[in-house]
Amino acid sequence: MTDDLREQVHAAARRARVAADELVLATRERKDAALHEMAAGLRARVREVLDANAKDLEAGRAAGLSQGLLDRLALDEKRVDGVAKGLETVAGLADPVGEVLRGSILPNGLELRQVRVPMGVVGMVYEARPNVTVDAAGLALKSGNAVLLRGSSSAEHSNAALVAILRDALEAAGLPADGVQLLPCHDRASVRHLITARGLVDLVIPRGGAGLINAVVEQATVPTIETGVGNCHVYVDAAADLDVAERIVLNSKTRRTSVCNAAESLLVHAAVADEFVPRITAALQAHRVTIHGDDVFARQDGVERATEEDWGTEYLSSDIAARVVDSLDEAVRHIAAHGSGHTEAIVTGDVNAARRFTARVDAAAVMVNASTAFTDGAEFGMGAEIGISTQKLHARGPMGLSELTSSKWIAWGEGHVRPSS
Amino acid sequence: MTDDLREQVHAAARRARVAADELVLATRERKDAALHEMAAGLRARVREVLDANAKDLEAGRAAGLSQGLLDRLALDEKRVDGVAKGLETVAGLADPVGEVLRGSILPNGLELRQVRVPMGVVGMVYEARPNVTVDAAGLALKSGNAVLLRGSSSAEHSNAALVAILRDALEAAGLPADGVQLLPCHDRASVRHLITARGLVDLVIPRGGAGLINAVVEQATVPTIETGVGNCHVYVDAAADLDVAERIVLNSKTRRTSVCNAAESLLVHAAVADEFVPRITAALQAHRVTIHGDDVFARQDGVERATEEDWGTEYLSSDIAARVVDSLDEAVRHIAAHGSGHTEAIVTGDVNAARRFTARVDAAAVMVNASTAFTDGAEFGMGAEIGISTQKLHARGPMGLSELTSSKWIAWGEGHVRPSS
Repeated sequence: MTDDLREQVHAAARRARVAADELVLATRERKDAALHEMAAGLRARVREVLDANAKDLEAGRAAGLSQGLLDRLALDEKRVDGVAKGLETVAGLADPVGEVLRGSILPNGLELRQVRVPMGVVGMVYEARPNVTVDAAGLALKSGNAVLLRGSSSAEHSNAALVAILRDALEAAGLPADGVQLLPCHDRASVRHLITARGLVDLVIPRGGAGLINAVVEQATVPTIETGVGNCHVYVDAAADLDVAERIVLNSKTRRTSVCNAAESLLVHAAVADEFVPRITAALQAHRVTIHGDDVFARQDGVERATEEDWGTEYLSSDIAARVVDSLDEAVRHIAAHGSGHTEAIVTGDVNAARRFTARVDAAAVMVNASTAFTDGAEFGMGAEIGISTQKLHARGPMGLSELTSSKWIAWGEGHVRPSS
Repeated sequence: MTDDLREQVHAAARRARVAADELVLATRERKDAALHEMAAGLRARVREVLDANAKDLEAGRAAGLSQGLLDRLALDEKRVDGVAKGLETVAGLADPVGEVLRGSILPNGLELRQVRVPMGVVGMVYEARPNVTVDAAGLALKSGNAVLLRGSSSAEHSNAALVAILRDALEAAGLPADGVQLLPCHDRASVRHLITARGLVDLVIPRGGAGLINAVVEQATVPTIETGVGNCHVYVDAAADLDVAERIVLNSKTRRTSVCNAAESLLVHAAVADEFVPRITAALQAHRVTIHGDDVFARQDGVERATEEDWGTEYLSSDIAARVVDSLDEAVRHIAAHGSGHTEAIVTGDVNAARRFTARVDAAAVMVNASTAFTDGAEFGMGAEIGISTQKLHARGPMGLSELTSSKWIAWGEGHVRPSS
């Protein structure tokens, strides 16, 4: 049974490779035509999608899924139109494939270029939201990759309906349907088979909670990119404008609490603690945020005392850990010890403090006098994103089209041979 | 005992992190001063190095190491001067750290830049040659990284002498000695502890044979870059100039047989087989190359019949697998089935054939009318290289200084918060 599943995943990967060999040669015109076909197909066949989604929602309610999960799973005509619009946006973006990254004529006359090429076969492992199915397929196609989608079993019918439409659109545009394939989702083992299919799969991107990411990283032999775990800090410096600080803390924490770029920890310089601690406590509490504070914060009404565990927790809820630090260096050390390398922000009017913080903090994104919420592919002008990488290899921060590519060196000579050294 | 070793490796990684936190802030001036100190130290203390090397050579002869391995292990005054010169070359290269990769002012006024930053703590696992110890330390330092070196036990004394000199030079330049550390080399387990030190080590580069690379990729939880396994092909097209073809095949195969960019396979288009097969057979045999051929090649005197295994073998010796193909597409399929994604060459006068080959072959480097031997960091103008990546993630082909870096997004605002969507 498990061997069958392994063979199923490997067979899908082999079909993906055949498709990838065609997609690598596809022109931008053809890829964009397929993206527009996909968008049109989603709109024309929205009933199919919503009927399938209704089945998933029914099964989800029967299985006792939380209201939050059901909300993330639910599609309606407007949401389907939104993902179709997303595909049209991707069609409007430049083709990353073929971009010349570096190039020169070498001293011996060899003409050398480094060009962007697709990764080849990319696997995505993700959780409930069916819109990720379409977003990932669109970005993979535009960057010339074949994609293997391993979604959540709770979205099984929705994903199947969406992928059927996407595959039809590929064929209508003269591209191989196997450029987009859905993997079996009922058995955890299909994830394992995907991430150990070395040689068959070029890259796997897990998108989900820390548990999924860790499992993938532990077991994978295929290269992977860790995404989306964020214990983001806002540090309010001695030289902060406290109005700005309040605004940035509130926006970072409360704009959306369930996303990876939300702030989970607040660090306040001792020099402004007397004024800022009561003020931000009241402001956060007015937004129904529970504060898990150190001794100083715990003196305020309604603040819970933080445990050691709080400093490393990604709450993804209306909670924040908060403490006072004696210096910028102590803030940097706290972040190094507890941060997840996602996004860290400083609020300060002191340019030297800002320079030191941005140079020393080791994270995908560092904000000066700006909310952590800005770490996002669309905000950064990438047009779309497939996830936010928190690792240092290959891609760091929001991943757009170019992060789904590799490169190739091409040299043209006229009979060049290398002398013995 | 094993737990002790694990703790030893982890303790070294923690010291490396402390050093890395200083190195990330080191100016180019200071790093270059340290590189020059290193070069001067190697020249001044060459006797220490050669005495230590003599011990390794003696132990190697006693252990029955092959003459080839002993040659790779041996140092003399000229070789030490060569590695010192290599450090001076690295000092002359631009500092990759701080380079702005992308940047713009976003529509909301946020000033956004993506800048190169060091990886942090980099591990190197490599085999006999002690010059790699110095090369890797120099490149790691220039790119702002702390490095953990896990060399071969056969080079134990040489590596210890070299690292002592490098560490003294770091201190003399006001940088932390722990930026360069040697890990215990007597137990295979130290490799395992290094590649599973997730969170402590940012990147591990294994440099060696397929066995080492596979073991590292299978077991690693730290990101790794596969390097240096090359089953490189030369494809002689129907439209090849056969003089050029002979020159390129001979140079690719015989210039140096023990290196990863040497050709291991020859593919000849059927249209030129009658003329080229006898000719290249004689030319290769004149260079004492053993041909493992298909039916057509096997009709020539002295050609051994190839087995299926030959097509996938990296000989690293005076052997070459050779067959006739019916078309460029068959050559591309053969390379896809048997190649290692290192370097593939086409010899042709037909520009369409060259375009098709370069677009379809999936490898780190593709040569048109040039020897496979050109895939090399120095040849590509990188000044130095730490290995040749054959994976698609992060770095592909020769890895120089910029391949040892990651990036960081930095955004400066003036109280920017993100509106709810």
